[in-house]
Amino acid sequence: MTTEAEAQRLDAADPLRHFRGRFDLPEGVLYLDGNSLGPLPNSTRERLHTVIDGEWGDGLIRSWNRLPDKLGGGGEWITLPQRIGAAIAPLIGAQAHEVIACDSTSVNIFKLIWAALRMQAGDDGRRKVVLSEPGNFPTDLYMIEGLERQGLAERRLAGVDDIEAALDEDVALLMLTHVHYKTGRMLDMARLTAAAHDRGALVLWDLSHSVGAVPVELARAKADFAVGCGYKYLNGGPGAPAFAFVAERHLHALEQPLTGWFGHAKPFDFDDDYVPANGIDRLLCGTPQVLGMSALESGVAITAEAGIDALVAKSRALSEFFRACVSRLLPDLPCVSPDDPAGRGSQLSFRHEHAYPICQALIARGVIGDFRAPDILRFGFGPLYIGYEDLLRAAEHLAEVVATGEWDREEFRARAAVT
Amino acid sequence: MTTEAEAQRLDAADPLRHFRGRFDLPEGVLYLDGNSLGPLPNSTRERLHTVIDGEWGDGLIRSWNRLPDKLGGGGEWITLPQRIGAAIAPLIGAQAHEVIACDSTSVNIFKLIWAALRMQAGDDGRRKVVLSEPGNFPTDLYMIEGLERQGLAERRLAGVDDIEAALDEDVALLMLTHVHYKTGRMLDMARLTAAAHDRGALVLWDLSHSVGAVPVELARAKADFAVGCGYKYLNGGPGAPAFAFVAERHLHALEQPLTGWFGHAKPFDFDDDYVPANGIDRLLCGTPQVLGMSALESGVAITAEAGIDALVAKSRALSEFFRACVSRLLPDLPCVSPDDPAGRGSQLSFRHEHAYPICQALIARGVIGDFRAPDILRFGFGPLYIGYEDLLRAAEHLAEVVATGEWDREEFRARAAVT
Repeated sequence: MTTEAEAQRLDAADPLRHFRGRFDLPEGVLYLDGNSLGPLPNSTRERLHTVIDGEWGDGLIRSWNRLPDKLGGGGEWITLPQRIGAAIAPLIGAQAHEVIACDSTSVNIFKLIWAALRMQAGDDGRRKVVLSEPGNFPTDLYMIEGLERQGLAERRLAGVDDIEAALDEDVALLMLTHVHYKTGRMLDMARLTAAAHDRGALVLWDLSHSVGAVPVELARAKADFAVGCGYKYLNGGPGAPAFAFVAERHLHALEQPLTGWFGHAKPFDFDDDYVPANGIDRLLCGTPQVLGMSALESGVAITAEAGIDALVAKSRALSEFFRACVSRLLPDLPCVSPDDPAGRGSQLSFRHEHAYPICQALIARGVIGDFRAPDILRFGFGPLYIGYEDLLRAAEHLAEVVATGEWDREEFRARAAVT
Repeated sequence: MTTEAEAQRLDAADPLRHFRGRFDLPEGVLYLDGNSLGPLPNSTRERLHTVIDGEWGDGLIRSWNRLPDKLGGGGEWITLPQRIGAAIAPLIGAQAHEVIACDSTSVNIFKLIWAALRMQAGDDGRRKVVLSEPGNFPTDLYMIEGLERQGLAERRLAGVDDIEAALDEDVALLMLTHVHYKTGRMLDMARLTAAAHDRGALVLWDLSHSVGAVPVELARAKADFAVGCGYKYLNGGPGAPAFAFVAERHLHALEQPLTGWFGHAKPFDFDDDYVPANGIDRLLCGTPQVLGMSALESGVAITAEAGIDALVAKSRALSEFFRACVSRLLPDLPCVSPDDPAGRGSQLSFRHEHAYPICQALIARGVIGDFRAPDILRFGFGPLYIGYEDLLRAAEHLAEVVATGEWDREEFRARAAVT
């Protein structure tokens, strides 16, 4: 059932439908790339205007500790990392004091791999392997390489079906991305975490493509560490700060290598020697980026308001509907995402040898998905602002572009860097 | 000559006077803390509104590579780090391809200490000492500690007059802050760099309190590395991205430990293995923070427009004028900044045992300077927006607060975290 009438019925029955009005998506655009960069919430526009004109412009340096009296919202800048962490926590099955917003996903991966290796160094110093899968998101793999170059880590890659066999006594840390950026495949967090723990390894989950769209239960899975991205389903804005999670049981022993002043117990005592702050705060390094943090806090607030259960339910329904539309219109286009909606993220990926120009031709029509090398067309379904009729239209555009060969033009083949 | 008439004469003759209108400083505020957080330029307010509504809101993911047609300014997001680096370069005596904007000052310090240690490891592996001075800005010292904990570095501190004596064959890197955050004392970059090079050490300069206010000639001094802060005299906004400099002669051998995807030669090929980008680009790590970068680019543009020579000349004249005002009104208040305006940054610091409540009492009057533990009152002079009459007024407020004991109230003694 992928008729227009059915799409309209689903839209009308959608309990999250009213969130659509919280985003002014541009006229004529069907935005299926919120898994790469979430759109601008109207409340974030307002919040940023307040931060710029009021908090920075009028409050100046004072806003670190208290906001100008005339500003109601916001909150002092100094607590942004902790406030955002606390707001993200319920979306990922964590406690407020286990999560903090800071730096980029890459930098947080570095801190937490290092921290895990440090915790594992107690034994005989043999456990140095960081195990991941080939084809994981590149920055995850590259950050392991950086530590390998320092002699601190040894990178081992095993296909996802061979992970359990590759978990031997040399493995210090299993580091995986929960939802695969390219295929949308979602891993069984609880099972893989337990398998790693059985072999004495710790586990770090990258939640970049999960948070805000799929169920994440870090505590239930007994995960040790996690990181995630602020600019995808959390709608935190381009290059938004990332977040990091450390299970409560590890907080007392947590050490990290980027020992900047904001992670100090008393940063404003200006002591010469580093004394780490208590708990998760010690993951902070330099001065927090206030503009990015403020946008992220606003984006997380909408996600929290909608509620993760409703977001997950709608994400699954959207992806199932789009899959059915594409199946009907383009029965020969292979979908490389898992069949079971409970086994994938809020995205669907299709393989086509001309994926790049097809993607460009769709963008020219206002249907924004993305291309992932070498041959993947990827569509993400932001459950706050995408509707079923949007998806039917997008699938129709896709079918027309493929069927007519509209993509086969020089202008669509020319490559630019794409994120 | 610190009369009102003289202040007005100096303001009228100030060639940078017209830049004052580029900032809407709040009514009733005398802002002498631009060395901690620069104020909001009007052009940055406009630029950010364009970034938020146009580039993010309308352009969405497309803005990474091209901006919506209706947007004139800006430029695609993907080149922000390089564009800002190129704009900062002439302010610090560097070439465009030697500077890049990224991450925080602390994170960039980590990368460059590590890079220097890596370059020095070629010898006999003995050079592990990173030499700095006690009382340097804390995050600089803390980042060395993080590397010490990894076994990669050994921290050695020597008072600034003993630095040359402490430069022995174990020193891999001399790392100093050019203008001291607390006293404003400026070091002789060329002399200390030469002394370090004579002993085979590399040199990393922290320019956080220098850039945009004092002459910096990295190439002339033959400096190897530098970092600096975007949110002080560059007026880049709260928590703005930082920048990093690597001398051209080191770029080919440069390695850094935070090997994130944006530092990859071809990030959008999504390869499993890390291949560093050419040149300074390899200092990038995670996805650049677009909101902060955009504000920084705008702030740097004003600085560049005013020209560093004019900014330096005015900074010196402002600080001399304020010193003369305070000397006349409070002859017993010791100034701990160097006497020679060419030997200090664009700030003056005074010692008073009640510096904290005095600072708070001044803030209550709208005179915003800052306190640095344990007993320093610090005033910074942003040459783009501060005038001589402002300084005369501020000195009069200071004298009244001290003379009347107005500071001696509970409300001014209560401490909060202060940046």
